[in-house]
Amino acid sequence: MSPRALPHPATDEITLAAVLHALSDPVRLRIATMLADGHGDMACIAFDLPVTKSTTTHHFRVLREAGVIAQHYQGTSKMSTLRREDLEALFPGVLTSVLNAARGAQTGEAAHPA
Amino acid sequence: MSPRALPHPATDEITLAAVLHALSDPVRLRIATMLADGHGDMACIAFDLPVTKSTTTHHFRVLREAGVIAQHYQGTSKMSTLRREDLEALFPGVLTSVLNAARGAQTGEAAHPA
Repeated sequence: MSPRALPHPATDEITLAAVLHALSDPVRLRIATMLADGHGDMACIAFDLPVTKSTTTHHFRVLREAGVIAQHYQGTSKMSTLRREDLEALFPGVLTSVLNAARGAQTGEAAHPA
Repeated sequence: MSPRALPHPATDEITLAAVLHALSDPVRLRIATMLADGHGDMACIAFDLPVTKSTTTHHFRVLREAGVIAQHYQGTSKMSTLRREDLEALFPGVLTSVLNAARGAQTGEAAHPA
C-alpha cells in the first residue's frame, strides 16, 4: 500500500449498522447526496458545507471507514466517490432509498446542527 | 396525556438522520426486524436479546424517540409496534430495504458488541 493510500473496509467487512451510522448525520447525508448527484469523483474542496474544514475531514473519514465512500489522492486533492455497487450488492435498495429520502425530506438538519 | 403515556414525535417531527441513527445499532436492527416479522404489537418481554433489561429499555426508547416504533402500556406491559406507515410516507423504501438487509446481511453485530 502506498504511504498516501487511505484505509478502506473490504466489501465483506462493510456492516449495515456502520453504513446507517455513517448516514445518520445531516452533513454526511448531504455529502452522500452531493456525490450521488454530482460528478462520480469529487474533491472535498468542491463541497460547500456549513462546517469547518476539520469537521468536513472527519465526516468524510466516517463515510470512508464505514464503506460508504472511497477516497484517493489525486495530486494534492483527496477525491471521493460513493461505493454504490458495493452497497447495492450488500444491502439492496438501502443507499438509493436513503438518498431519495434525503433529497426530499427533513434530514434532521434543524434537530442536529453541525 | 395520561400519566403513563410515553412521548412520541409527531410524524412531521421525524427526521431521516434520527431514524438512521436509531437503526444504526445491531440490537436495535434486531428489535425492528423482530417487530416486522412478529406480531404487530409485541411486549418488550417477548424479545430475546443478548443485553440487560436496562439496555433493552434504552434501545426501545431510542427507537421510540426517533419515531421508528410506537409504544404504549397494556396493563403492566409496554407494547411496541413499528411506525411503518409513517416512515413509508416520509422516507419511501428506507425501512423496508433496511429490514431486508438486516435479515440477510452482516449487521455489524461482531463489530459493535452490545
